[in-house]
Amino acid sequence: MPTILGQNQYGKAENRVVKITRDGATHHIKDLNVSVSLSGDMDEVHYSGSNANVLPTDTTKNTVFAFAKEHGIESAEQFGIHLARHFVTSQEPIRTARIRIEEYAWERIEHAGRGAHSFVRQGQETRLTQITYDGEQWEVVSGLKDLVVMNSTDSEFWGYVKDKYTTLPEAYDRILATQVSARWRFNWTDDEQEMPHWEKSYEQTRKHLLQAFAETYSLSLQQTLYQMGSRIIDNRGEIDEVRFSLPNKHHFLVDLEPFGLKNATEDGAVYYAADRPYGLIEATVLRDGCEAKIPVDLTSL
Amino acid sequence: MPTILGQNQYGKAENRVVKITRDGATHHIKDLNVSVSLSGDMDEVHYSGSNANVLPTDTTKNTVFAFAKEHGIESAEQFGIHLARHFVTSQEPIRTARIRIEEYAWERIEHAGRGAHSFVRQGQETRLTQITYDGEQWEVVSGLKDLVVMNSTDSEFWGYVKDKYTTLPEAYDRILATQVSARWRFNWTDDEQEMPHWEKSYEQTRKHLLQAFAETYSLSLQQTLYQMGSRIIDNRGEIDEVRFSLPNKHHFLVDLEPFGLKNATEDGAVYYAADRPYGLIEATVLRDGCEAKIPVDLTSL
Amino acid sequence: MPTILGQNQYGKAENRVVKITRDGATHHIKDLNVSVSLSGDMDEVHYSGSNANVLPTDTTKNTVFAFAKEHGIESAEQFGIHLARHFVTSQEPIRTARIRIEEYAWERIEHAGRGAHSFVRQGQETRLTQITYDGEQWEVVSGLKDLVVMNSTDSEFWGYVKDKYTTLPEAYDRILATQVSARWRFNWTDDEQEMPHWEKSYEQTRKHLLQAFAETYSLSLQQTLYQMGSRIIDNRGEIDEVRFSLPNKHHFLVDLEPFGLKNATEDGAVYYAADRPYGLIEATVLRDGCEAKIPVDLTSL
Amino acid sequence: MPTILGQNQYGKAENRVVKITRDGATHHIKDLNVSVSLSGDMDEVHYSGSNANVLPTDTTKNTVFAFAKEHGIESAEQFGIHLARHFVTSQEPIRTARIRIEEYAWERIEHAGRGAHSFVRQGQETRLTQITYDGEQWEVVSGLKDLVVMNSTDSEFWGYVKDKYTTLPEAYDRILATQVSARWRFNWTDDEQEMPHWEKSYEQTRKHLLQAFAETYSLSLQQTLYQMGSRIIDNRGEIDEVRFSLPNKHHFLVDLEPFGLKNATEDGAVYYAADRPYGLIEATVLRDGCEAKIPVDLTSL
Repeated sequence: MPTILGQNQYGKAENRVVKITRDGATHHIKDLNVSVSLSGDMDEVHYSGSNANVLPTDTTKNTVFAFAKEHGIESAEQFGIHLARHFVTSQEPIRTARIRIEEYAWERIEHAGRGAHSFVRQGQETRLTQITYDGEQWEVVSGLKDLVVMNSTDSEFWGYVKDKYTTLPEAYDRILATQVSARWRFNWTDDEQEMPHWEKSYEQTRKHLLQAFAETYSLSLQQTLYQMGSRIIDNRGEIDEVRFSLPNKHHFLVDLEPFGLKNATEDGAVYYAADRPYGLIEATVLRDGCEAKIPVDLTSL
Repeated sequence: MPTILGQNQYGKAENRVVKITRDGATHHIKDLNVSVSLSGDMDEVHYSGSNANVLPTDTTKNTVFAFAKEHGIESAEQFGIHLARHFVTSQEPIRTARIRIEEYAWERIEHAGRGAHSFVRQGQETRLTQITYDGEQWEVVSGLKDLVVMNSTDSEFWGYVKDKYTTLPEAYDRILATQVSARWRFNWTDDEQEMPHWEKSYEQTRKHLLQAFAETYSLSLQQTLYQMGSRIIDNRGEIDEVRFSLPNKHHFLVDLEPFGLKNATEDGAVYYAADRPYGLIEATVLRDGCEAKIPVDLTSL
Repeated sequence: MPTILGQNQYGKAENRVVKITRDGATHHIKDLNVSVSLSGDMDEVHYSGSNANVLPTDTTKNTVFAFAKEHGIESAEQFGIHLARHFVTSQEPIRTARIRIEEYAWERIEHAGRGAHSFVRQGQETRLTQITYDGEQWEVVSGLKDLVVMNSTDSEFWGYVKDKYTTLPEAYDRILATQVSARWRFNWTDDEQEMPHWEKSYEQTRKHLLQAFAETYSLSLQQTLYQMGSRIIDNRGEIDEVRFSLPNKHHFLVDLEPFGLKNATEDGAVYYAADRPYGLIEATVLRDGCEAKIPVDLTSL
Repeated sequence: MPTILGQNQYGKAENRVVKITRDGATHHIKDLNVSVSLSGDMDEVHYSGSNANVLPTDTTKNTVFAFAKEHGIESAEQFGIHLARHFVTSQEPIRTARIRIEEYAWERIEHAGRGAHSFVRQGQETRLTQITYDGEQWEVVSGLKDLVVMNSTDSEFWGYVKDKYTTLPEAYDRILATQVSARWRFNWTDDEQEMPHWEKSYEQTRKHLLQAFAETYSLSLQQTLYQMGSRIIDNRGEIDEVRFSLPNKHHFLVDLEPFGLKNATEDGAVYYAADRPYGLIEATVLRDGCEAKIPVDLTSL
């Protein structure tokens, strides 16, 4: 046979499950988008079309919804752990399960009504987690995407290499803005270890990330990235590795001289927010002695 | 000539202008997407290609950026008024200017640093305004889009018409969720009138809209829509008309009986958040005696 | 009562219906996205929440799917006519029905297999139609969106107004590219009239539009627009009105002089395809003596 | 230092370069979206913000546009090879360059005009390539995305595992539709080897992929995937590995029994095209004896 099968995985993607928990008149929401991916002894379905080892993707969907009722959704991470354990331990041909979850945050609407069951979607970042289980070891990588941040000063860019294609003037006071995509890997890998407090871990990691962005006087977006990563590693003992993909959302100072106007003055300036192209800065920050496991590519660009 | 020219307009769309105002170490952001549309004596450019009456769209773009410096951006509405007045009064062939603006909100990042120049984009709704000026009368229509809200109870739907294609069971406790798209028209039309306080008006209108959504015990999304509109008309004297386009973001109770589970119980339930199709409810709410002027179609569906 | 209800409409949007017709081993596809919008005697559902006059949006969805089986889908227009007639004639409170349809085109995959049931989605433009019926008169507006076209020469732009904000240099040979959004209104309004051949009308109208774009030596995008519209009116007697919304997809000649390169030479040139901002040109072209009825705003920008 | 830097890369993403080549009155288009990513001796810019080894992303953008003029764009692959070689060989700190390119296809508009310079964008798939060069070895991975295909019969799904969460009925005649995302790796790795004919290779690989989809009587999407991959490996000696990510675009037979209609009949049936959730099938097909190098994750779900 001239061709062979390599790595393969399958499952139901984007199960949009919303769990409302009622505590009397006070309701709570968990709003998730759950994608299941299974792999194992699946050669035959590829070679001959025999589905004898295939749990249908429709069944994996049903399991997501049933588990939301049976186990509740304490956190996206805990929910993913329940699901991954179930698929690997209940179906012999399945050797590895990977559960990816996006979580959308809601906040309460303040009002004069009786109950607490009215919500507005926050719309800021999307929270992410990925749980992988092979029957022995766990890997939990959480993170976020689409968190847009800006420093309107305290950013410079100069002293770089110049070649024959370089025309960029050096900048001593520029806007630094980016749309943060980040993933961080926990060192919890074993059922014997104490599990992190997933909700608190997320909240604190996000806070450190934002504060490091705000507090870094930046000579390059790479430097800011490293500060964000090392701040997380320094403060969150449960996390060993962080990877960022940071598009440089360019804000160009508009040339207003043709109209007799000086743009950058003491009281501020006008910028053009560009779409494409954009700088894209990506890197991993690691706890010393740890191995990098988060894949290099968070984007397809 | 068998064909003639009808209504026409042109301009530069989606000028992404960001204005940073510095008040010492404290910075402020206005982040707008400005679209200019001009009409007037433009027959010749269509019939023969003569551009003698055409101010280039590139010039309208330059004007947006220059005005951000010259006049600042006190509010999206005020900025649109400056622009519309300029085009109509400075170019004889231009009879009407319409300025549409999207505004993106930012909040400050709390941190221990020295200055106040670090921001995170809120990401909730997009604020909107449209300014139209014909040299005499102003029309200002503001609004918002993509504000996602949910009541997890206090919503019913029953007592409807049944025909041969009706299979929907009546519901006595359902989730009501929608992604609000709203436009409201101000009764300020004349330079002689006192101008509304645009920023405060937006903040209060948004608050009334959210509170009416939360406080209405709903028998239909139409009823909730009307309550949202009339709450605004009742409380904001500067507004005469509101139009909503409300997709019903369906959250279906999942049937868990095949798995031996009862879904809707005292402590909550599990829902499937559907994408398409969706109910789409649209209506205008008017101050009595006023004429409706906001176009019927806020969507193209 | 200080507030009143204005225009209102409701229905199920984006019903994704696919009809496969089998003619022996040869299959045919119709792939539609159908949105239903109904209006009539609907005050009470807004004021009190009484659904006594409300046919559920879920029922309108069921009707779409059932009609695809009962009547087939000869064309999007004919299918919309069946649906609109049904809602207005079968439900007393419903006075007007508006059906909007997007159609996605597929072509056959050429292969050595037995049957003709393999397809690849064309992906070029999306075909559109809107059917409105009030029980007496029909209005049919068809069209298309997202048809991207380019002339790589035979386009100029000069002789325009210069004011203090004008910096654009005149162009004597530029790329002209746009993403066509067009709507055309048929003069068929009455069941007594002979109905147009909807499929052939679409095919021919699209062909005239493309050819007029290609054959016009353009001094402005407005001129090209008018040529496209008048070509349709001249050639298609069933159409009285056309409206276009044409974003100018700017392709800027890149300045390569800093690198010692001349860009625009006899054998071609390099362009930067910009995203935002963009010129936006919109106009109606009418058969002389006809009234314009297509709404001015095909976009919300 | 408790934290260290891991893998890192940077560059300018999404440079939208359009090259028009003039061959008398006949013009040719190459329309690319080019993303540059460089890595090497970049520790200092992360640790201290020193840009001494950093070629600005703005310079990489300029290089893309200048190279389009200097070298032309014979194919996306050849263009990427020029760029990657340049960055690695001209800048000492840069050890590896990765160039990713999306290509958009255009076809000519048939018309009666003089020249051949009018085009309509095809809009079907997006062609992809990724060139990686470390100064010694080349890796070229090409592919496509967003190619939507459907078989309206000759697809079954039965004989699968049933557990307590399984409710799916077996299917003996269903629609099989997917949106193909594929990547294939060439065995050209060295300047000494003869280079493949990139344009012909793409055209033929796409053809084999489509024909294998059409000609496979499918018992599972996995089987179809494997057939598509092995057809390519069997027919294209320049390719050693193919990876697919195939969402199962579900078309559900609508239950029309409540309306007294039988849906699936000899002359066809009506389907509901669902959005989410969807099955997602991913696998690699390899030439026997070759090592898999294409990353497992083509999507982030």
